[in-house]
Order: sequence, then structure tokens, then C-alpha cells
Amino acid sequence: MADNDGPFARSTAVRRRGGGDAAARTTGTDATPGTTVYDTMIVDGWDIGGNANGGYLLAIVGRAMADHLGRPDPVTVTAHYLSPGQPGDATVEVTTIREGRRFATARADLVMGGTVITTLGTFGDLSDGEGALRVDAAPPALPPVQECTAMDDREGFPPSFMDRVDLRLHPDDAGFARGEPSGEARVRGWFRFPGDEPVDTTGLLCVLDAFPPTVFNAELPVAWVPTIEFTAHVRARPAPGWLACEFTTRFVTGGFLEEDGVVWDATGTLVAQSRQLALVPRAG
Amino acid sequence: MADNDGPFARSTAVRRRGGGDAAARTTGTDATPGTTVYDTMIVDGWDIGGNANGGYLLAIVGRAMADHLGRPDPVTVTAHYLSPGQPGDATVEVTTIREGRRFATARADLVMGGTVITTLGTFGDLSDGEGALRVDAAPPALPPVQECTAMDDREGFPPSFMDRVDLRLHPDDAGFARGEPSGEARVRGWFRFPGDEPVDTTGLLCVLDAFPPTVFNAELPVAWVPTIEFTAHVRARPAPGWLACEFTTRFVTGGFLEEDGVVWDATGTLVAQSRQLALVPRAG
Repeated sequence: MADNDGPFARSTAVRRRGGGDAAARTTGTDATPGTTVYDTMIVDGWDIGGNANGGYLLAIVGRAMADHLGRPDPVTVTAHYLSPGQPGDATVEVTTIREGRRFATARADLVMGGTVITTLGTFGDLSDGEGALRVDAAPPALPPVQECTAMDDREGFPPSFMDRVDLRLHPDDAGFARGEPSGEARVRGWFRFPGDEPVDTTGLLCVLDAFPPTVFNAELPVAWVPTIEFTAHVRARPAPGWLACEFTTRFVTGGFLEEDGVVWDATGTLVAQSRQLALVPRAG
Repeated sequence: MADNDGPFARSTAVRRRGGGDAAARTTGTDATPGTTVYDTMIVDGWDIGGNANGGYLLAIVGRAMADHLGRPDPVTVTAHYLSPGQPGDATVEVTTIREGRRFATARADLVMGGTVITTLGTFGDLSDGEGALRVDAAPPALPPVQECTAMDDREGFPPSFMDRVDLRLHPDDAGFARGEPSGEARVRGWFRFPGDEPVDTTGLLCVLDAFPPTVFNAELPVAWVPTIEFTAHVRARPAPGWLACEFTTRFVTGGFLEEDGVVWDATGTLVAQSRQLALVPRAG
């Protein structure tokens, strides 16, 4: 479904086992009826501290689901993260649940030994996007890109995933890396792929999980926040150019936190929302 | 899993096919390995205009998932709504995806002829709930229950689901029913089950989809908003008493809207969040 050949598209490529096209619903070896198996590879370098970024993994699964269903756009996808993804060969197993006129629903697992992520998604075609009836929010107030803080210019930090994407944080939200959190559980910034590789709607699944955790700015004793569940809603195909992104957290309670994301394209159009539930490990 | 015998508990009861207990993971007829089949009934009167309320249906599935997994609390559940649920006999088919120490993940389908809803959930035990590290929100500013607007006191309206629950809307948010929407895409109010039947964490799945659509207050030409996808996060077991609920929508764009819910218990503790993606049918 990728309409380009950049590093992100190549790093999320999937190959239907047994060949055939989407309409044929070719079934791979060991598959149950209605299931297609795709071969893929978790590419080295899309990791944070050795574990592949969750949004990158979800984009791989999204490509397989879109191909299997013959629908290009992930209108809504939910993933439960079960075990860390390591570089190497993997498979995606996609099973149709319902095919409707406008949307189709499938479940899919990313498997590498055990199941890395399990997902449920409804796909469609957003090419004839309708306009906005009501928008009670605005893109984040970001300084120009060149005045924001790149995430790839520090010795040893950030981790290698940050070299695969081009993140520019709002300077007010970038202090956590030098031990000066803003005090607000919020991270805002610009996103693009290096070399201006286009971000399609599957690429948005990566954008929505690409930024540092909001809680890093919250002055809490939290070192990492493993994702339990992540849901993306894609509202529109993004226009070319930088994406303006905002992630916020309101509740760090019961050992959990939620993180809400909103992504706007260069024309000021809302293109995607996300919410994830993550664990807040007890300190010490 | 229901620890009471009230109307909601009885209306969401599930019976493991073939008997046996949760630990035995009894497999029903026609089931794939690791799958348990439950018999249930979509009870008449939990509908809105003839179609069973989505949160009620999700609670039925949640009971089956909790029993199958042997974990009482739906930490996060996502449902995709595929076809309307009608009163009558139905089955829930639950399949384990992963059992961990602290959480277990399963998928489940509610089937009545075809699949009514398909779900993915991670369950655990919230009995030793940790406290709050950070809360950047407050319960909605609701007048006392007796000053709010009951949803069961109008001739012919509201539909029968509203007789199964006890909703009291903030007076400022209740005008839509008489053609006087507030102008804000928001609905706030109190919730309980009639007779003070306890709301357990599975009951929260019903609470989170019980209120009228936010968009009814938004002065848009929208008659109904069919849910595509619904995700609940349960943060804590609710204390007895009225639940304070707030639902908001920020984006009605691209033919879709999201609706975000927050539920607080009588002690002022956040107990659940939700987000759903719904269609905004073209008028006319």
C-alpha cells in the first residue's frame, strides 16, 4: 500500500505468503480459513533501547491488514502490546472478521516466536474525505521548525529510533532530556520522515507513538511507561509537509496513565488521534 | 463475576457451555483450541429504538472474558460494532491470546447469526489499586442529583434503555430533548442502576456508553451516531453511590466524530475513561 520507496516504506514492507493479490485472499501455510500470512522483517534501528518502537510495529501490521482487506486506510486500529519486538524475521497473520460496503474489519497478530502485538482494526478509503463540521481545538502553538529542538543531536541520546524520524520538540517541552522537565504532562512538536518521505495513513500509526512520553515532563519518578493498549483513529490523509503533534496526559492513577495524541497536517487539518494506556511501574 | 443479583447482573449473565470452571478452560462445541463458548441472552428492554445499547452488549462480552481469563477487571477493552444486537439468544466466543502474571489478553465475539461485536481486551485484578500520582482534571461540576434532569420522565421518550438505568443530566446539557441544545458538544450527568444495584468494573462498560450523544448538544444536523469503535480503560473499582460522568467531543470531521468519556465515583476517584469513534451520517 506504500506509494513510495523511502526507508519507512521499506522498513514496514510485508510480503503475502504464497503470492497472489488482495482480491484472491490467498491463504498461507498453517492458516485458518480467511487468514492471510505475511512475511516481514522488524528492521534493526527502529528500536528504543533494543526494543522496536510500538508505532513502527503497528505500521507493519497496518500494511498487512490494508493489503489483506483491500482497503488503504486504517480508520481505527487497536493494538495490545504483549512482548517486545526484536529485529529479525517475523510474520503477520490477518483474519477477516467482516467485510462491509464502506468498511472492513480484521484482526491481526505480529508473531516472532510468540505474539508481539495483537490488533483489531477497521479499514476504509478516506480519499473522498468530508470536511469539518465542528473543531473545538487548534493545532499546538509551535515555534517554526528551525526554532524547535531536534531529537537527534545529542551524544548517545536519543536512542536509534530517533535517527529514523525527524522530531522537533517545542523548546518548552524539550528540557526533560537535560533534567529540566516542564512540569506539565505534555509533549508538542513537529514530525516528518527524513528526506521528506511521504507520511501516508499507515505512517500516521508510527507518528502517533513516536514522541517521548508526556510523563517525562511531569516531574514524577517514572523511568519508562510500557504500553498496554494503543488505539489510533485516522481522520484524513495528511497533506505533504511537517505534521504538528501534541500529546497530553491527565491521569496518572491506579498504576496506569493514558496518553492522548492529536496530529494535524500542514494545512491545519486534523489527521489523527490516539490514546494509549500505559503502565507506570513502581519506582525502586 | 457479578457479585449481586440485580437486573443488570441478570441481564448480562453468561453460562459456560459444557460447564466446568474458569481454570479448566473448558472448550465448547465447534470451538477452536483455547476458545470457550458462553451462552447468553440479549434481554429485551436494553435497546434504543430496537437495537440493544452498545455498552450493555459490551458488558455481556466482558463478563464472559473475565470468567474465561479468571481475571475480574476489564483494564482495557476495545469493541468494533459490526451489526445491531437484537433481543434473543446469543453466544460469546472467547479466545485467550496471552496469559501473563499480572494481566491476561483475549479476544471475544458476540454472535447472533453473524457477529454483533468483536472485541479485544486485557484483564487483571484492580483490588489493590494504587493511588493517584497526578490528576489534571476534576469531576464535572454537577448540581445535586435531585436538581438534575431525569431521563425517564418523558412521554414516549426516552427509549426503553433509559428505564434500565438511572441517568440524571446536568440541566444545562438536557435541553436538546426539547429542541434547545446547549451549543457545546458535551453531556454531563449522574449515573446509577435503579435500586442502587452495585456497579462493578464490568458495569462501567455500560456506564461509559449510556449517555445521549454529545453531538445532540452541538447544533449540528445529526440524528444518530452509529459507533464504529469503542475503547474503555478501567482505572479503579468504583465505590458505592452515584457516578459523575462527563462526555465531550472536539472533532466532527471527515464524516466521523470521537466521544471521550470520564467517570468518577462518589469519593471523587477517577474510575474509567472511554473514547469512541462514531459515524456522522450525511444529513438527508
